[in-house]
Amino acid sequence: MLDGAVVVGIKNGWRGLIEDDTEVLTRQSVTGILPRGGTILGTSRVNPEDDASIGHIKANWDKHNLNALIVIGGEGTLRAARDMWRDHQYPVVGIPKTIDNDLCGTDFTFGFDTAISVVTDAVDRLHSTAESHHRAMVVEVMGRHAGWIAAYGGIAGGADVILVPERPFRLSKVCEILRRRESQGRPFSVIVVAEYAQPHPEEDFLTPEQRTEIYQHGRLGGISFYLAREIERCTGIQARVTNLGYVQRGGSPTAFDRVLATRFGIKAVEMVAAGEWGQMVALRGTSVIGVPLDEAVNNIKYLDDEIYRVAEVFFG
Amino acid sequence: MLDGAVVVGIKNGWRGLIEDDTEVLTRQSVTGILPRGGTILGTSRVNPEDDASIGHIKANWDKHNLNALIVIGGEGTLRAARDMWRDHQYPVVGIPKTIDNDLCGTDFTFGFDTAISVVTDAVDRLHSTAESHHRAMVVEVMGRHAGWIAAYGGIAGGADVILVPERPFRLSKVCEILRRRESQGRPFSVIVVAEYAQPHPEEDFLTPEQRTEIYQHGRLGGISFYLAREIERCTGIQARVTNLGYVQRGGSPTAFDRVLATRFGIKAVEMVAAGEWGQMVALRGTSVIGVPLDEAVNNIKYLDDEIYRVAEVFFG
Amino acid sequence: MLDGAVVVGIKNGWRGLIEDDTEVLTRQSVTGILPRGGTILGTSRVNPEDDASIGHIKANWDKHNLNALIVIGGEGTLRAARDMWRDHQYPVVGIPKTIDNDLCGTDFTFGFDTAISVVTDAVDRLHSTAESHHRAMVVEVMGRHAGWIAAYGGIAGGADVILVPERPFRLSKVCEILRRRESQGRPFSVIVVAEYAQPHPEEDFLTPEQRTEIYQHGRLGGISFYLAREIERCTGIQARVTNLGYVQRGGSPTAFDRVLATRFGIKAVEMVAAGEWGQMVALRGTSVIGVPLDEAVNNIKYLDDEIYRVAEVFFG
Amino acid sequence: MLDGAVVVGIKNGWRGLIEDDTEVLTRQSVTGILPRGGTILGTSRVNPEDDASIGHIKANWDKHNLNALIVIGGEGTLRAARDMWRDHQYPVVGIPKTIDNDLCGTDFTFGFDTAISVVTDAVDRLHSTAESHHRAMVVEVMGRHAGWIAAYGGIAGGADVILVPERPFRLSKVCEILRRRESQGRPFSVIVVAEYAQPHPEEDFLTPEQRTEIYQHGRLGGISFYLAREIERCTGIQARVTNLGYVQRGGSPTAFDRVLATRFGIKAVEMVAAGEWGQMVALRGTSVIGVPLDEAVNNIKYLDDEIYRVAEVFFG
Repeated sequence: MLDGAVVVGIKNGWRGLIEDDTEVLTRQSVTGILPRGGTILGTSRVNPEDDASIGHIKANWDKHNLNALIVIGGEGTLRAARDMWRDHQYPVVGIPKTIDNDLCGTDFTFGFDTAISVVTDAVDRLHSTAESHHRAMVVEVMGRHAGWIAAYGGIAGGADVILVPERPFRLSKVCEILRRRESQGRPFSVIVVAEYAQPHPEEDFLTPEQRTEIYQHGRLGGISFYLAREIERCTGIQARVTNLGYVQRGGSPTAFDRVLATRFGIKAVEMVAAGEWGQMVALRGTSVIGVPLDEAVNNIKYLDDEIYRVAEVFFG
Repeated sequence: MLDGAVVVGIKNGWRGLIEDDTEVLTRQSVTGILPRGGTILGTSRVNPEDDASIGHIKANWDKHNLNALIVIGGEGTLRAARDMWRDHQYPVVGIPKTIDNDLCGTDFTFGFDTAISVVTDAVDRLHSTAESHHRAMVVEVMGRHAGWIAAYGGIAGGADVILVPERPFRLSKVCEILRRRESQGRPFSVIVVAEYAQPHPEEDFLTPEQRTEIYQHGRLGGISFYLAREIERCTGIQARVTNLGYVQRGGSPTAFDRVLATRFGIKAVEMVAAGEWGQMVALRGTSVIGVPLDEAVNNIKYLDDEIYRVAEVFFG
Repeated sequence: MLDGAVVVGIKNGWRGLIEDDTEVLTRQSVTGILPRGGTILGTSRVNPEDDASIGHIKANWDKHNLNALIVIGGEGTLRAARDMWRDHQYPVVGIPKTIDNDLCGTDFTFGFDTAISVVTDAVDRLHSTAESHHRAMVVEVMGRHAGWIAAYGGIAGGADVILVPERPFRLSKVCEILRRRESQGRPFSVIVVAEYAQPHPEEDFLTPEQRTEIYQHGRLGGISFYLAREIERCTGIQARVTNLGYVQRGGSPTAFDRVLATRFGIKAVEMVAAGEWGQMVALRGTSVIGVPLDEAVNNIKYLDDEIYRVAEVFFG
Repeated sequence: MLDGAVVVGIKNGWRGLIEDDTEVLTRQSVTGILPRGGTILGTSRVNPEDDASIGHIKANWDKHNLNALIVIGGEGTLRAARDMWRDHQYPVVGIPKTIDNDLCGTDFTFGFDTAISVVTDAVDRLHSTAESHHRAMVVEVMGRHAGWIAAYGGIAGGADVILVPERPFRLSKVCEILRRRESQGRPFSVIVVAEYAQPHPEEDFLTPEQRTEIYQHGRLGGISFYLAREIERCTGIQARVTNLGYVQRGGSPTAFDRVLATRFGIKAVEMVAAGEWGQMVALRGTSVIGVPLDEAVNNIKYLDDEIYRVAEVFFG
């Protein structure tokens, strides 16, 4: 299958194709990367958005004599892939990769399982000090649009409250849970909060400046910082913050993510060999199949209701 | 849902119900078990196989005034559950648990993801010494009927050869791969072998006594020991053995396994509440559903062909 | 040695002795605690500070018919032990435990190695995304008086800058290092900062309110938050924060910490058997010996200069 | 300190100097190796043992215009370094590295802490299945001359029996401990055995062929295999084997090992700068100092008696 093909690695996503930053990948150059986190090719947030970019892409495509493009990324990167196929007939195949798991069309994206394993480990460590301390632990995790990481990591770690972007939260409800736990002799609680979770408008406790800082500038650690302060105020329980930040993005991938990424890669090559363009590889149950890129990029995949209900069973 | 219900834990599987060994489970008694491996209830290989056993079960069922039985286990345990429902109308719901992942009806059983994470970590560690040594590393992993652990762990760890029970292996083929790698300047190889993988009859290298020891007595470490010896003989490359044994069964479960087990548990309670007897909870894609126990216990779920083909892409 | 002795666990440190909160420890009740973090006995910050407390201690001591007291803790807890021996002749032996490693008289306290392993793992994960991002990662770690965790964790993780409480830092110096790295094609940096590290007075960037919040209220995450903002301002490099918080305190202890704690425990029992009161067990080289409690509690053990020089070799 | 010096990496230990296999090490070529196990330079068991070798070394030394040689390794490698200094006046400085920790002159060698962390993790995982199984778990670990890994890993993991090369063991004693545990309701035991531990001559259970295989050919897994069989025979308890093998050598080093190796490296450079030849860097307490190579290579550092006594406290 594609024996003898030359594999050209494009650096930093679409930017590498626009700026002609590439590197031929050989067996030797990829030896040993399996257990490593991150990417040897780099990333960027650059997408081909104007005629100039698309012109550069055409020039570099011809220069390297490319026959197909396998595009790895999240919603933005794959939307550009869809456009390049739909509008310019570039032969592309997509591979879904985002730690946020918020991409439609596939059961899971790779990177997600590794991220939740980091969150779970952190929550476990907090719990192991539970018998010794009287505290509310606020753990801020990633999640811009969707609460997948918060929900899975929170369920796996046994969080007492989980706050996600899809459901504006009421501080009064959080404090009520913590006080009830305290009254039951369980004065230690873990609150997992997604970075973009926000207070319900009826119970807002953020100033406009704080809102801008958190939700527009993406100042990580903001919501956990202010939430901890409010919890102390309304319950009298000392609150402490853990903000994992980019730690969630890195480190050796889990076995699940490695098998998924390996299967995705092989399927993508098979689709290239078969000329199945404009599609994305996807996990559906135990199978890896191709789905139209359109399916993946038109909507955010919000947190499954069933998962949130599972989480709620353990609240408080 | 089932508010106010008393939960009686049955010790050591069916044996506890036969011998009346039980313990009421309270919120307090299960606090803190989430991150722990193993089981607080114990296990046994005892199933209700004669009238006496079934009589004891009836007596203890009545004594404890049970309304439903949630049965957690692999093929043998769940087969007994199916029989108790089919033949004696006991209201049972099953939950699939085996590290081997060889149970039909569900995409995954819980325990499997944790087992492959242990295997992957071990193979990673072996690879990290690769630059320093000229060796064939034989890693024996669990797998009586099916090669799921060997295949997933091997793919995730980047094994150069994976041997599974479903496919008797030819030593000549293994040695050929190792020699080819050596001739390409890669004199370090990792061979992952399932404990019940066996040599192809046309190239058998085991004595009848060794066969009995390995495949009937389940003497762990046997096949890796003899395979390593044969590899040394036929390639001249020094071979070393790692036999993980029960290390694969233990330790804190992965996030994936914890979320799966939590969802399974909640679904089982819902099924009890709805009186959906004779079924097993199962993962299908991203959903947890009920399937007839019959589906689960009539066949072994052998390793998926697609997975084995993925593994083979990287052989040698 | 002390065969047949009854071991009474005192809950929550000195508070348990003042309030008569105890629990007899048996082989059974301590089975399985070895791999767990935290403490089954709990902690508090209560010390016997007035005559009433000391009166309660006397009453409870007599009530339980105690013959010796083994006191496990950091500077405050052990200072109280020293006083109870010196001023009231209670037969005490101390065991040094603090994750901060800032206790004199012993090479290491237990808990420290586990804390630095958590920090190292986090920094490793950040580095694994280094090839993909152009960022300054600010990692806040524990350390009130001394920079042991920051220095050891930073060296082990390969931090590019390490800021400790012992040495007020100049923002201009930090930014200079980051800019130099950028100009050398290394636009990714990790800055490890102890929670109580502070800006040099000549280059202060905190308001009085922020100072109070960070250094008096111990608002974790404060210094990293403001430092990240300043770094963005002076270098133009996007800065992100990771604040591990109490994650550093928990989780299964490292092998080093377990062996150390086990040896400390046995030595403490030997000292009780020998009547060597008013002392603390201590690691010196490869030996565990007794040292006067006085040695441990009169001074803070600040970060060793040699260690800081080692760290500085890799700055920038 | 040595600013501007060129660092030439010698491949595969002494073999690289004999065969002129070298590589200039730059900041770029060593970037990112900190968290990785193994060695980028490779190893061999070749030492300069005849005039021809020493002649080659002289030629290559002159060719590369070397001014000093930093030799990293265990007893054999460092003995050669000592000889090259003593007999031929080559300016050498040694760095002690062996996972076995059996080198005199230094409190610890680097690699050891990482090895015991692997063993501890494995024993923890076995224990986590303890509540479910009635088993004797035999864990074979590295240790040719000395039982450091077995003892530290066994203490940290809470092993019930630890067998080391320094003390031939009596099977009857092992079985007695297991039976006593069983009679006390603890039918699960972990036996940690060093690969070169041997039965006491008065209670030998190995054939001469088996002895040769294990102690001369270094057939890993041998002693654990036969010991498990004997335990089953004499106690009736099912025994299972875990043989970690080379997994102990690999993987990301612990924080302890990284800090130790970093300090050793810096001290070695300082000693080169100061012309302190014929010495080895060594950890003594919290200091890194130089000691004569003679001290390190004339004797094996056997397991400390105090450590073994600590281990014995928990036997049974």
